[in-house]
Amino acid sequence: MISQSQPRSTAGGDAPGLPVRRSLGLERLFVEKLYQQIGRPAIQIVLWDGTVIGDRASPIGRAIIHRPRVLRRLLVSPILSFGEAFAANELTIEGDLIQTLVEMNRGLARVATPQFWPTFFSRQVPRNTFAASKRRVHHHYDIGNDFYKLWLDQQLVYTCAYYARQEATLEEAQTAKLDYVCTKLRLKPGERVIEAGCGWGALALHMARHYGVTVQAYNLSKEQVAYARQRAAAEGLSDRVEFVEDDYRNITGECDAFVSVGMLEHVGPESYRTLGEVIGRVLTPEGRGLIHSIGRNIAKPLDPWTVKYIFPGAYAPSLREMMDIFEDGGFSVLDVENLRLHYARTCADWLARYETATDQVRAMFDDNFVRMWRLYLASSSATFLSGDLQLFQVVFARAANNSLPTTRADWYA
Amino acid sequence: MISQSQPRSTAGGDAPGLPVRRSLGLERLFVEKLYQQIGRPAIQIVLWDGTVIGDRASPIGRAIIHRPRVLRRLLVSPILSFGEAFAANELTIEGDLIQTLVEMNRGLARVATPQFWPTFFSRQVPRNTFAASKRRVHHHYDIGNDFYKLWLDQQLVYTCAYYARQEATLEEAQTAKLDYVCTKLRLKPGERVIEAGCGWGALALHMARHYGVTVQAYNLSKEQVAYARQRAAAEGLSDRVEFVEDDYRNITGECDAFVSVGMLEHVGPESYRTLGEVIGRVLTPEGRGLIHSIGRNIAKPLDPWTVKYIFPGAYAPSLREMMDIFEDGGFSVLDVENLRLHYARTCADWLARYETATDQVRAMFDDNFVRMWRLYLASSSATFLSGDLQLFQVVFARAANNSLPTTRADWYA
Repeated sequence: MISQSQPRSTAGGDAPGLPVRRSLGLERLFVEKLYQQIGRPAIQIVLWDGTVIGDRASPIGRAIIHRPRVLRRLLVSPILSFGEAFAANELTIEGDLIQTLVEMNRGLARVATPQFWPTFFSRQVPRNTFAASKRRVHHHYDIGNDFYKLWLDQQLVYTCAYYARQEATLEEAQTAKLDYVCTKLRLKPGERVIEAGCGWGALALHMARHYGVTVQAYNLSKEQVAYARQRAAAEGLSDRVEFVEDDYRNITGECDAFVSVGMLEHVGPESYRTLGEVIGRVLTPEGRGLIHSIGRNIAKPLDPWTVKYIFPGAYAPSLREMMDIFEDGGFSVLDVENLRLHYARTCADWLARYETATDQVRAMFDDNFVRMWRLYLASSSATFLSGDLQLFQVVFARAANNSLPTTRADWYA
Repeated sequence: MISQSQPRSTAGGDAPGLPVRRSLGLERLFVEKLYQQIGRPAIQIVLWDGTVIGDRASPIGRAIIHRPRVLRRLLVSPILSFGEAFAANELTIEGDLIQTLVEMNRGLARVATPQFWPTFFSRQVPRNTFAASKRRVHHHYDIGNDFYKLWLDQQLVYTCAYYARQEATLEEAQTAKLDYVCTKLRLKPGERVIEAGCGWGALALHMARHYGVTVQAYNLSKEQVAYARQRAAAEGLSDRVEFVEDDYRNITGECDAFVSVGMLEHVGPESYRTLGEVIGRVLTPEGRGLIHSIGRNIAKPLDPWTVKYIFPGAYAPSLREMMDIFEDGGFSVLDVENLRLHYARTCADWLARYETATDQVRAMFDDNFVRMWRLYLASSSATFLSGDLQLFQVVFARAANNSLPTTRADWYA
């Protein structure tokens, strides 16, 4: 249904200050066609001249396209252009951002075949060489600890939290996640842990502090490692937690538990076998391993906007692809848990904190950045909610290891 | 170490009644070489003339080769010939059968590359057409309900039990397994369940009896279906449990829960996508699914002896291969649990009962059969113990299903 209302924006032309031009019949037809293809979701699309496409009286949200050029770009590269236009404020969302994006995701899932929108589904999987990994990690994690402190929890845990109770706060849920990972690893005092990709060190410090283990924790981010070392020193844990600024491929030594929380997304599927070899090299015969990663039900790249602006080189594997880590190394997968709705909530909690701090973010960066990260946090939450992304925790051990508990009750005891 | 002792058997020649001939230098060399290649395990190999290969003073077990021809056949097709010679009593094991086989498995794992023993690792995956499935199911499951009653639990559950407590009996562990499956499926009274491959009906009847659901249960085995229907009638459950003698590919209708326990091994990897399509056709948007199957860490066929004599057409998939079921159907894997040590114990419990009933088995079949099934039960236990086989329980749901509990505590509550 296309209806006409008053122009919504005085800046509807392609150049600032130009008078609004009316939308063309072809433009309206394209949007109407798109709206049909995505199954007429409960959203409205509003054009720069006030034209409304969408047939619900009370839509979940409205996507307002403020300039004709946005529409042209959406034709060529829909996801990338959507993100760019949102960051540039040439496309805005009215209504709850996460829920509107969920509704759009569900619609897109209906038409998301490899034939549709080839740019979105291009099977370009980035190769993460040593140098590229370093550069890409720098892009995201070194934009400033102060920035992340504005909206992460106090321990700076930048991975999926675990809401053991419905009413848990983000702080509680992150601590619960750290404990849950330690429980799944069955850490015993005196054991040696190797962590691949340790962020600001929260898990490594938590393990040393509460489980009596020693930890070697690897990370490519200079800023994160410096911060983690400060924390270890301040807590008197420097002798039990060593933070190593290096690539996971250079991990050496021996460990009773191998853990990686939120690093696999930056490894790239071409290197999963290498990661498996690294683990095979360092894990003792009775050792346990846990890999926690964003995942997919079926192999496909992350959307091009996220890969371009947020996480260069990132990739969320399917369970099938993750098996590359375990199969050649002679490991048995013991346990897989999908925590996607925990990540949906984690991102929503991050977004809520972020929204209260946008003035400070704007002072650090600019309006474009503020909107870009708003979209990143909201769309991440939405993508977990709509079931397009998963969060897999995989526990594994060597195939012949018969020393582990055989029930979950015993395992968690 | 090769040592000489008194000839162990008067029937050491290739023909019964012939005098024992001495083992040849080449024969002893071959066995010694093999023993080295498998890492000098804690077993001894004894030849027909009393020659002992193996260097432990107190071995876990001894494999005694009573005829020269066994050795020749082991050269050509080791696993197949081992099984055939064991069934023919031309190769016997002294010591604990399961533990001796575990030790041999561990040794074999050291040399088990695709280059070694091509017949063992031939990638011949059997195709299970409708007719072949029927024939193969008949081969194993229709050899007589009375035979299975001799050594299965009272409910005739012929799949991995769940020993929730260490001291559980087989009876208790099978009931615990049925309840565990129901818990994982989150059955609610009044719901409709479809079961693919229902054996003698224990799970279907248990679900109807204790969880208030209605069940459509499919099975290709005529004898099993007849037995299951009798049980349903005797319990007054015929109106709530329908046993259908048909192929899983012909499943129709709609269900709130889809379950398959121990059928996937007979499906064959070429049909996993078909199974996924079947589930996609029948499962409601908020439905849950569970597939319980013997599995592998990495794709390879079952050993040729088992496929030839015990389970024609059977195949134990890797988790990677199982993903074929879920990926195209738009399912999310929510939970995977590996219960391999439970199956090791289940098989050991079956073997113990079987050993007390061998006179009855001999009366039904013959000595050859008695030994063949002894080896099957013992080697199954050993193969789970050594980590060569896994038991995966996979819980799944449609990708967009947000109605399910988000923690295991809530899921199991």
